[in-house]
Amino acid sequence: MKAEIVAVGTELLLGQIANTNAQYLSNKLAEIGVNVYYHSVVGDNVDRLSLMIAETAKRSELVIFTGGLGPTQDDLTKETVAAHLGVGLVMDDDAMSKIEAFFVQRKTKMAENNRKQALVIEGSVVFPNDHGMAPGMAVRKNGTTYVLLPGPPSELYPMVEQYVMPFLMQLLPGQQVFHSRVLRFFGIGESALEERLLDVIEKQTNPTVAPYAKEFEVILRITARAKTMEEAEALIVPVEDEIRERVGQYVYAVGETSLHEVLFQTLRERGETIACAESCTGGTLASLLTSLAGSSSVFAGGIVCYSNQAKHTLLDISNEILDTDGAISETVAKQLAENVREKLGATHAISVTGVAGPGTSEGKPVGLVYIGLASEGMPTEVKQIQLAGRRHAIIGRAAKFAMFYALQRIKER
Amino acid sequence: MKAEIVAVGTELLLGQIANTNAQYLSNKLAEIGVNVYYHSVVGDNVDRLSLMIAETAKRSELVIFTGGLGPTQDDLTKETVAAHLGVGLVMDDDAMSKIEAFFVQRKTKMAENNRKQALVIEGSVVFPNDHGMAPGMAVRKNGTTYVLLPGPPSELYPMVEQYVMPFLMQLLPGQQVFHSRVLRFFGIGESALEERLLDVIEKQTNPTVAPYAKEFEVILRITARAKTMEEAEALIVPVEDEIRERVGQYVYAVGETSLHEVLFQTLRERGETIACAESCTGGTLASLLTSLAGSSSVFAGGIVCYSNQAKHTLLDISNEILDTDGAISETVAKQLAENVREKLGATHAISVTGVAGPGTSEGKPVGLVYIGLASEGMPTEVKQIQLAGRRHAIIGRAAKFAMFYALQRIKER
Repeated sequence: MKAEIVAVGTELLLGQIANTNAQYLSNKLAEIGVNVYYHSVVGDNVDRLSLMIAETAKRSELVIFTGGLGPTQDDLTKETVAAHLGVGLVMDDDAMSKIEAFFVQRKTKMAENNRKQALVIEGSVVFPNDHGMAPGMAVRKNGTTYVLLPGPPSELYPMVEQYVMPFLMQLLPGQQVFHSRVLRFFGIGESALEERLLDVIEKQTNPTVAPYAKEFEVILRITARAKTMEEAEALIVPVEDEIRERVGQYVYAVGETSLHEVLFQTLRERGETIACAESCTGGTLASLLTSLAGSSSVFAGGIVCYSNQAKHTLLDISNEILDTDGAISETVAKQLAENVREKLGATHAISVTGVAGPGTSEGKPVGLVYIGLASEGMPTEVKQIQLAGRRHAIIGRAAKFAMFYALQRIKER
Repeated sequence: MKAEIVAVGTELLLGQIANTNAQYLSNKLAEIGVNVYYHSVVGDNVDRLSLMIAETAKRSELVIFTGGLGPTQDDLTKETVAAHLGVGLVMDDDAMSKIEAFFVQRKTKMAENNRKQALVIEGSVVFPNDHGMAPGMAVRKNGTTYVLLPGPPSELYPMVEQYVMPFLMQLLPGQQVFHSRVLRFFGIGESALEERLLDVIEKQTNPTVAPYAKEFEVILRITARAKTMEEAEALIVPVEDEIRERVGQYVYAVGETSLHEVLFQTLRERGETIACAESCTGGTLASLLTSLAGSSSVFAGGIVCYSNQAKHTLLDISNEILDTDGAISETVAKQLAENVREKLGATHAISVTGVAGPGTSEGKPVGLVYIGLASEGMPTEVKQIQLAGRRHAIIGRAAKFAMFYALQRIKER
């Protein structure tokens, strides 16, 4: 099936945001074997959008539009697609009830233009919006299926997972199954990983092996196509074994997860808790550990002791040590981890102290980070790492290294 | 000048990377008043690229291509553009010497296909690549200027700054200046804002007024074009005044900034400090407040008391109150703010306690959040809000509301 993705929105043409929706959708379509031939962005302009729709109708069997379903005057995707198809818009009662309920719950008055969001193209399949107001929809004419989806990723992603993917699967001919396994790596760069697996990546056509870097991690996706799930699985296993034999020590998880999810699950299964004391990461570690529902069962608490005074007041680091060793030191990392663990009665504790930049601190280089790991019944350990990148990247990487080391440590206990 | 941007690369259509080059270039073009009407992505396929080039030639005066200038077989942008223009490729001696020097310096042998990177379209203006091998180029035919640039951002950005922008400025007629002012709003939705400004938005052509929503905020960009900066400014002022008269109470800043930056600056100017105690936001507020360099001068410290035990142990909330009022209550919000402020000796303190979801907590609804504001010499205030969205959105919005209220409060003091 030939597909393309059209984003509608002048904010993209002004460079205010990047078209990450096209990336997300392309990934999802690749998973089910749909070939995407074009991405386009067009502004909130009825004439240019009309021309674009006519063009896509000639060349694609599936056209996915994102954006332009909002309440304002310049949101015109569904109106323009409907005009191209020669059909009208009708009120979707479910969507309208949801919009009304939203305003009742918020105790605010609904603006008249919010009513426009409940209109859908006549004869379309409607996808409910569980996280916003504008529903999505799909309509078919002359061999082309048009799918219209909301622009905000917080609405788009869940709608795609829940409703659009099952809808698209029905459109696919034959019994082919696409089956993927994702291996998640930490502590090895993308090019180093690719170099060690070059022959595996190059020789494979089924399954295919594709590495990509994402938020300081590397992910390897093995995708097989076959008649059945079992056959696809049988194609994946030997390739996975070969990869694990070479670089298995860097694999921290399989599937759609993250370091903080794996850490959370590991602690929950063991009935253990964790606390953290953060200097340079400034709350990033705590916010990751509490980002998952139910985290109060494993997260004992966190202290953000960015300043030296906070280290002294909240975590009893003596002013002598802060003066002699400095806040960015093995000694302080050790004491922060031990003291926060004791204060909160946690099984484990992580501390992070380092130089996030842009300037050096205490004469120590940007990117120098100490990670302290204290656990019940084990000697405290401190890891020293040197990270590259700008402030934001150093903070993010330091938090990930802290979780990666904690995970190794917890499994040792 | 009508412009468009075409990215060439199958990796984009597979969703391996997002088209951030288009965002970057759009921003640069907007700065000099060039209107971008389309972004497109096409794969490494000569037929589809040819069709795309023919299409762009019909509708645009400036077409910027990114990617497909590499050494491999599937890099075919310049070959395909040259074929469309009916001209050949010629060796660029400067580029060739640079490529040879690179391999000499690295003491590795040059691959034969690296020679291909030094070829440029006959008759083109060549842009040197100071950070890689493939030069960029520009060529004009039948009223359209074609600009070909390398795909890697580390090569593209410096080439654009150094060589492409001056080249494009020469193409622009007259002395027109484009000047923008951005007003940042918090606490009012995009559609509510637009409804209150509909006539202002509609009647304006110079300056134009465009609202957009971004990470739980709304931004309004006022853009004027004129002969001089002063004339453009004179066009913007009355429109800004009109907008402020209607919805000025929601404006928290002007220009490229954020709530946490404004809060940080305000505190720094006043020589005051802030502390925070976070339950449902779990460290998000602290991580925002420490994301800026130099934050130790204003951020006294933070305590992440996600669990009730942490509220009790770290912030002295009595178990009776946690049992009777519950952790999600006005009383607890008040005490958290007062106690964290006292512990850290800060001028101000913020507390956040609420239900981030997905489930209810203590029988209280998802999205209910209490924000406590304690300040030296002022009675403590607690705000109750009801937020919509998923866990991630509630956490993000709660942190922003906390900063917005803190900002108002600090200014009152």
